[in-house]
Amino acid sequence: MTNPAKADWLAVEWFENRLSVWAMQGSTVLDTATGAAIGDSVDALIQSLTQLVASWGLSARLPTVVAGWPEAAWRAVPCSAVADKTAAQPDENFNLQFIPGLRQSEPSGLLHGAETRIAGFLSLNKDWDGVICLPGATSVWAQVSAGEVVSFQGFLTGELIATLGADGPAPENTALDDTAFDEALSDGLSRPERLAGRLASLRADRMIGDMPAPTVQARLAGTLIGAELAAARPYWLGQSLAVIGPEAEASLYMRALAQQGAPATQADAKRMALAGICAVRRATTGAG
Amino acid sequence: MTNPAKADWLAVEWFENRLSVWAMQGSTVLDTATGAAIGDSVDALIQSLTQLVASWGLSARLPTVVAGWPEAAWRAVPCSAVADKTAAQPDENFNLQFIPGLRQSEPSGLLHGAETRIAGFLSLNKDWDGVICLPGATSVWAQVSAGEVVSFQGFLTGELIATLGADGPAPENTALDDTAFDEALSDGLSRPERLAGRLASLRADRMIGDMPAPTVQARLAGTLIGAELAAARPYWLGQSLAVIGPEAEASLYMRALAQQGAPATQADAKRMALAGICAVRRATTGAG
Repeated sequence: MTNPAKADWLAVEWFENRLSVWAMQGSTVLDTATGAAIGDSVDALIQSLTQLVASWGLSARLPTVVAGWPEAAWRAVPCSAVADKTAAQPDENFNLQFIPGLRQSEPSGLLHGAETRIAGFLSLNKDWDGVICLPGATSVWAQVSAGEVVSFQGFLTGELIATLGADGPAPENTALDDTAFDEALSDGLSRPERLAGRLASLRADRMIGDMPAPTVQARLAGTLIGAELAAARPYWLGQSLAVIGPEAEASLYMRALAQQGAPATQADAKRMALAGICAVRRATTGAG
Repeated sequence: MTNPAKADWLAVEWFENRLSVWAMQGSTVLDTATGAAIGDSVDALIQSLTQLVASWGLSARLPTVVAGWPEAAWRAVPCSAVADKTAAQPDENFNLQFIPGLRQSEPSGLLHGAETRIAGFLSLNKDWDGVICLPGATSVWAQVSAGEVVSFQGFLTGELIATLGADGPAPENTALDDTAFDEALSDGLSRPERLAGRLASLRADRMIGDMPAPTVQARLAGTLIGAELAAARPYWLGQSLAVIGPEAEASLYMRALAQQGAPATQADAKRMALAGICAVRRATTGAG
């Protein structure tokens, strides 16, 4: 990394209570930092940011473009993936510029952060049309055409996996039980209406204790992702597909889609976030 | 209430971390007490019990028949609803006798407590055959014939309602939004595979804040109970039905079943628990 003190702006992503910061000189990354976000007020954001970049020796009041801020304004879909405006909130340390999220009224939906990752993917894949899946606490399927987000649908899959998996021993750093995942996925896809019943059976399996924890966890993930794929079928069937996420979650969706004969392009979430923030900065300032 | 010091045995139900105790003289209730259970070890149970009955002036080592104990042994279904054996664990204060739960291998399922409520219902409704629904953190549908529990299926509906409803303002002591419940129920029943997507939309509705909290809560309950009824259809369609639960939860299921042209008998959970514990005591001691 180069000396971050030379940064002329900061790129920031707030995502699921984690904060990522990039010290930028034009389109060059000088340094990066990540940490837990302390809260969801602007004051808390500034405090978290200040701590994260304390050692960088930054100039004061750098333009600081923030993606994923939950309190940011919304744009209504359909609209361009790249925001053409940010909401400025200057502070004595940072010249904050919030990228708006996306809002859909039918079905009700909110994105804050996913839209910028999508914008990043499109900035790196010009003229790409298709459907982008973004796994997370809420996973998102977004239909993209001619640089616009046309519509999207969220699923609470990630949060359900975390919540329902939290009462048993977590299978940490163990390989996924592929067979258990595949079986549960196939079952979840073919009979999604049995979801709540399957979850109760998995709870019982966990309590009985005969089934290894990684197997229970793989079946939980497979069951829930299977039900999601069943409901999202209109989104992925016969479409160009991309999956943007952290490696662990994205690889489950890649595996699941491949099983259904629907191969997808995989892209890294952080890299897409940064590319999206850069695209918004170019669109709003004319900077290169 | 009569003087509980005259009790010759105690009936106890442990259910979802709550403890209910009845001071019994034969089949007569002398006094009752309920409280939070401190933990799920036998020592913690004894400590909780000791506190709850401290003012009763009981004799030491009373027979204490406990239903719903999560660490109790299991019987495999199909089997009689009324347990014919309890597991004795005498202590210097209480002569504990644990009623075994039920276990099913396909689909995996465990009951601890529901089986005794079922036994109570059958002891009060001789020769009743049909299906009993027991709402709770895990709701249970049990098929009952000739005094036996033939099979059952659990659904994680109650826990999902509590978990997913916990991140918003709780609509306390407000009437249910009937219209919102009915619409969500009907939708959940007809397209259960959309469950995870609907939950994400409800989360967005809650965050946008345009929809009143009781409406969001009613839609959450309707959606999840609808999906449960869709999956449990083979259990309730064309069957004699009973719903055993606390008033609030049971009334939602009664309403939902009535909408589907499937009226049910409603019975109070605590009353059925006590009747079941009495039935087990009669079966295991020959006491009247």
